[in-house]
Amino acid sequence: MRIDWADGQMPVLRSIRERFAREKPLDGLTVGLCLHITSETGVLVRALKAGGADVVLAASNPYATQHDVAAALRDSADVHAGPPEAWAEDVASVAARAPRIVLDDGADLLSALHAVPQLLEGMLGGTEETTTGLARLRAMNLTVPVFAVNEARAEKALNDRFGTGQSVMDGILRTTNILLAGQTVVVLGYGWTGRGVALAAHGLGATVIVCEVDPLRALEARMEGFAVMPALDAAARGDVFITVTGGQDVLRGEHFAVMKDGAVLANAGHFDVEISLPDLREAAVSVRDVLPLVQQYDLGGRRLNLLAGGRVVNLAAAEGHPAAVMDVSFALQALAAEALARGSFEPGVHQVPDAIEREVAALKLAALGVEIDELTPEQAAYRSLTSPPLGR
Amino acid sequence: MRIDWADGQMPVLRSIRERFAREKPLDGLTVGLCLHITSETGVLVRALKAGGADVVLAASNPYATQHDVAAALRDSADVHAGPPEAWAEDVASVAARAPRIVLDDGADLLSALHAVPQLLEGMLGGTEETTTGLARLRAMNLTVPVFAVNEARAEKALNDRFGTGQSVMDGILRTTNILLAGQTVVVLGYGWTGRGVALAAHGLGATVIVCEVDPLRALEARMEGFAVMPALDAAARGDVFITVTGGQDVLRGEHFAVMKDGAVLANAGHFDVEISLPDLREAAVSVRDVLPLVQQYDLGGRRLNLLAGGRVVNLAAAEGHPAAVMDVSFALQALAAEALARGSFEPGVHQVPDAIEREVAALKLAALGVEIDELTPEQAAYRSLTSPPLGR
Amino acid sequence: MRIDWADGQMPVLRSIRERFAREKPLDGLTVGLCLHITSETGVLVRALKAGGADVVLAASNPYATQHDVAAALRDSADVHAGPPEAWAEDVASVAARAPRIVLDDGADLLSALHAVPQLLEGMLGGTEETTTGLARLRAMNLTVPVFAVNEARAEKALNDRFGTGQSVMDGILRTTNILLAGQTVVVLGYGWTGRGVALAAHGLGATVIVCEVDPLRALEARMEGFAVMPALDAAARGDVFITVTGGQDVLRGEHFAVMKDGAVLANAGHFDVEISLPDLREAAVSVRDVLPLVQQYDLGGRRLNLLAGGRVVNLAAAEGHPAAVMDVSFALQALAAEALARGSFEPGVHQVPDAIEREVAALKLAALGVEIDELTPEQAAYRSLTSPPLGR
Amino acid sequence: MRIDWADGQMPVLRSIRERFAREKPLDGLTVGLCLHITSETGVLVRALKAGGADVVLAASNPYATQHDVAAALRDSADVHAGPPEAWAEDVASVAARAPRIVLDDGADLLSALHAVPQLLEGMLGGTEETTTGLARLRAMNLTVPVFAVNEARAEKALNDRFGTGQSVMDGILRTTNILLAGQTVVVLGYGWTGRGVALAAHGLGATVIVCEVDPLRALEARMEGFAVMPALDAAARGDVFITVTGGQDVLRGEHFAVMKDGAVLANAGHFDVEISLPDLREAAVSVRDVLPLVQQYDLGGRRLNLLAGGRVVNLAAAEGHPAAVMDVSFALQALAAEALARGSFEPGVHQVPDAIEREVAALKLAALGVEIDELTPEQAAYRSLTSPPLGR
Repeated sequence: MRIDWADGQMPVLRSIRERFAREKPLDGLTVGLCLHITSETGVLVRALKAGGADVVLAASNPYATQHDVAAALRDSADVHAGPPEAWAEDVASVAARAPRIVLDDGADLLSALHAVPQLLEGMLGGTEETTTGLARLRAMNLTVPVFAVNEARAEKALNDRFGTGQSVMDGILRTTNILLAGQTVVVLGYGWTGRGVALAAHGLGATVIVCEVDPLRALEARMEGFAVMPALDAAARGDVFITVTGGQDVLRGEHFAVMKDGAVLANAGHFDVEISLPDLREAAVSVRDVLPLVQQYDLGGRRLNLLAGGRVVNLAAAEGHPAAVMDVSFALQALAAEALARGSFEPGVHQVPDAIEREVAALKLAALGVEIDELTPEQAAYRSLTSPPLGR
Repeated sequence: MRIDWADGQMPVLRSIRERFAREKPLDGLTVGLCLHITSETGVLVRALKAGGADVVLAASNPYATQHDVAAALRDSADVHAGPPEAWAEDVASVAARAPRIVLDDGADLLSALHAVPQLLEGMLGGTEETTTGLARLRAMNLTVPVFAVNEARAEKALNDRFGTGQSVMDGILRTTNILLAGQTVVVLGYGWTGRGVALAAHGLGATVIVCEVDPLRALEARMEGFAVMPALDAAARGDVFITVTGGQDVLRGEHFAVMKDGAVLANAGHFDVEISLPDLREAAVSVRDVLPLVQQYDLGGRRLNLLAGGRVVNLAAAEGHPAAVMDVSFALQALAAEALARGSFEPGVHQVPDAIEREVAALKLAALGVEIDELTPEQAAYRSLTSPPLGR
Repeated sequence: MRIDWADGQMPVLRSIRERFAREKPLDGLTVGLCLHITSETGVLVRALKAGGADVVLAASNPYATQHDVAAALRDSADVHAGPPEAWAEDVASVAARAPRIVLDDGADLLSALHAVPQLLEGMLGGTEETTTGLARLRAMNLTVPVFAVNEARAEKALNDRFGTGQSVMDGILRTTNILLAGQTVVVLGYGWTGRGVALAAHGLGATVIVCEVDPLRALEARMEGFAVMPALDAAARGDVFITVTGGQDVLRGEHFAVMKDGAVLANAGHFDVEISLPDLREAAVSVRDVLPLVQQYDLGGRRLNLLAGGRVVNLAAAEGHPAAVMDVSFALQALAAEALARGSFEPGVHQVPDAIEREVAALKLAALGVEIDELTPEQAAYRSLTSPPLGR
Repeated sequence: MRIDWADGQMPVLRSIRERFAREKPLDGLTVGLCLHITSETGVLVRALKAGGADVVLAASNPYATQHDVAAALRDSADVHAGPPEAWAEDVASVAARAPRIVLDDGADLLSALHAVPQLLEGMLGGTEETTTGLARLRAMNLTVPVFAVNEARAEKALNDRFGTGQSVMDGILRTTNILLAGQTVVVLGYGWTGRGVALAAHGLGATVIVCEVDPLRALEARMEGFAVMPALDAAARGDVFITVTGGQDVLRGEHFAVMKDGAVLANAGHFDVEISLPDLREAAVSVRDVLPLVQQYDLGGRRLNLLAGGRVVNLAAAEGHPAAVMDVSFALQALAAEALARGSFEPGVHQVPDAIEREVAALKLAALGVEIDELTPEQAAYRSLTSPPLGR
């Protein structure tokens, strides 16, 4: 039932599944997945199966596995979803099937495969979903092509911006039920995700301050209407702080020392090191749980409220990305798998081809009921004379 | 602990409590409350007690009573919070105490008092929190003064707009986890609450369509940038529908007949009659629960998803108004109680005096750390010559 | 030709003209106008004539008269538009015609009529367009009914907000061609016009600070997302200052003393006393014209740029209200004139009747091509039980 | 005086001038400019001179030359600004000086130099400001390095978006004085400039429809809250049309045939071919000038109002880019000239180096009074492990 609900929210992947069912682009290929096992992943598995693939699956994060979904998928896929302590073994089991195509999230499966060269022999390539995974792959001696899904423009502009923006606010509201209008929200980091968080906070009526170390991003934040200042100045003004830098110790002792009583601290970056827990513990006289997922650190009169222990707030305190967001991500992955099956690419990390980005965008527009024009032949001829290729 | 958390979110009421503790404006007066028994009401009770009042309390809606809060309040107030079937008796028990001042929510306590004239003898007056309660009071032969708290400008402009706007979105996200960006949200009704809902939906990236029967409100919606159209046209375009008219059968058979597969239906108006459940049931081939608080009506191919059975979505599926919203409402009530204790008013429904609105606004600004100017004597003199009194 | 262009921008008045031509509600009545003689007023004259009126016209501000329009109107109306020094005489000439209905802007014509009681004998009443005029009328012993057009909700919410907001930005851009994005714009005063200016500045990318003496308005500004602070704090941060308070000396010596080099000063309030020119002159080492309508006051190193000599910037440096704004104002006036002709009202200042507001809103919606629903009979019956009458 | 006013609006270039005056990075180099001769260019010339350059200058568009500025510059530069018919000769005169560095706008000077190989011998390189110029250069056999200034991120994100957005609205308001709130504005093309136009129109209260042929851009527009549809559907709904595609015949006969009476047509793309004038003339019964820069085409009952004859509306009907916009463009050019003087680059078109983008952004932030943080050494070390280099 939950896979069905997700399916209803993922029209792009559904449309790809229908085409895959007709064209069978993955016919006979073993496709290895190392992804969060959730209802949305269930919808992806359906599409790959429809395309003719033999799917073998392990969890990229065993703690996040939805076990009812894993059970439901066992009918149609080879699922390795044991307890957390069996996780490495599960990944190894998927690798041992020598998948021709790999959809990875954190590079664990690709790493396991590269450790056993003969497993790579017939491999066509893979995709990777995370910044961290891409950093690992770029540091490796990669012998297969891998598409950097999370560097796709559709992914950054839509998912990071809207999906994370909304779900971070959702996580904060579910844990605290604070009224955002009138509050000062400090967003630390103004990459795509930071933009999304800033926009959503602004959209719900908060006054937003942005902190950023990159001058070009800082300037963009300022031109887009946000106050920009050093974190120490912002620390004294904020009611809610959201870290989303990808870095560490973004909020630390010196910032805690000047924050207002009642301030709320949340992290939306990949790891739980953006808010310095050691500094927070050191500064605190006492700590107590005041609401589910809200720990209150008493700094001797001033109380700071840490959400979800500093873990990613939209995953820990809400439901992570909406299915509509995963729809675009997984559509990029399904089409990248098709491209690997049909074509031939050099080893190394590749950007997702423009044609795939455009196909996903076109399917999403169709799902939204939006029609657009095409250039007339005369316009196409004119454009080729005067303009760079489409794209930013 | 929950009252403490709420207390931390209610600085205006806290500030009033501190003054009340010094000035004791309610000294020796019995104050009767018929309100939702929640942690926020607990903070109001603290303020009234600090002002010297003897507080006696029943629930305005026994199904919404937080029983841990009721238990915690028994130390300091006379609490009548029995099971729902004992509700009328509980209200009668509060009335029997012959309160001098009444804070009401739905006019049940004021009605009970008016049924027994001798209970009204020493009564100074009361406040009423709801539109429905005010309609009842205006239809009665009211023998005491009552302040219409929910017609206060602070209440409409801030609470209805920001509090309800945010909490309605919260309720929709908690139940469905849909991505609002890119969706078309149809808001039916453009009073203050409808504005809040439209703003919040727009703020999270949705395309908003407004339906409204009043041409002036419709024009305002249009000038404020929203598409405006008849409900039947909107029915065919919307992904999410939110009724907030105060009326009935706003969405009915003819609308369901043209809605898209997967449409979400939510009500944010006072009663569960805005979405016609009889019409929905009649049109449906089958109904099933697909997620908690989400019922799916299958209309033969097209599925409509009804949230919270058509009950108020921000109460049924989220946590209702944030404490910061109740802070302003209850501050208006506490100051209205003080005004009743200090002054003398004609029987009937009164607007909340401007001075109280300004005091609450000033305390809220102080809580937000905002300072403002005062007119210089010369400016005040000039203004008195050229301008109407302050106010919209 | 200019009246034709304005006519094309004024569909509401055009629609009223068509009905007036059929129904002749002003048949045989002399209607006296004391308004700015502009192309928009020309369109109003056409509507009144179509309704059967005999129109007699003087300028409310002879310096603002568009003489080509005055000439064009002489065919159809009795126009008194002499040179400024003949202004009082012109107004007297209109009064001498003993108009039955008066449309006034500043109360000069109504005052002239009240000075000669016999001229008032057959008078049905009038309308007044300005705050200042209404203050004068309220201080008089008024013997006829007058509708307060600029207190109509349609006027405040639409015209003050959108018309003035846009035209003030227009005036600033025409004189300075500064880039608003990234600039800090300080808006002093948060009445309806201040809101409009703040919204338009924000809409063009500026960071907006609001200064306001009324705590309720200040709180609204803060909740609507703007920074709020005392004028002296804002003075040190702003790049552009816009006064719109209706008061005097809003920006004065103490503020000039802390402003940044290059700051721009503009007034959008009714009179040129909001920015203290005496203080500015006293503080300045030298003054020079640096661009048309831009005077630069050199305060010894820091230079402040005053626009339009402190006069209303959207009138002095742009073209005042767009015709679409005057369309709503003049439609209210035309319908108020009709109401005076058809009905009978007590002497004194009256709010524009709700029915007229709704008719104007409905015509404006029709002009925008917007359709809306009506309540079903069942809904109307239900509403009458539970709700206050429509309106804010 | 006008160069002084512009200087006051160009703090980034002023700050570069001050450093150049100390460091003399261009000492003894002949720098050839082929740019619009405006007051802003005058400020650029001052900076280059301060850096030690010998400046020689021709107009890139002789019709846009501000002759008072040209005269004022003759003291400090070798200015060739004859009448339009002498334009080719003027460019040739600059080329004949064999400049070591060239700042070009349209590639005319670089083309002239490439026609005479010996003039290129000591040449260090150049910059180009326009898309069209870059297309020409990319089609040439370029023997020197050229920086693509208008492809810089600072240029796209700030100047195209905010500068053009504001100035296009300015041009439309100056010519028509229409009220944008409530109007439907159709933006054809959603590149950076289209985004800017859509944002500014939305910011002033218009309802915006976007037409776009690229599905990814179309999807972004939709997710950012705009209605998206084919141009033919939009044609029937719009009140104002703004073409900004870079293509031709974007609005043509089929669109004119369905437009509403009174529709306004404006072009903000580079050339006047986006609105098909031949089709417009063919469809029209008659044409007349109704306001300065407004031609009305009567299509037999429906009248379409063309602004500025279809030429770029912000240049033809307003004052083009604000100085603050040229500040960033010219700062990029000045620093690119310095980089060419100090370093050595391969022939061909280059992106502006990141370090230059960052320096300009940092100077602009300083000018806005904005401070930002730097990474701590620990943070920098951590980032180098986990993240891609800064940048989108």
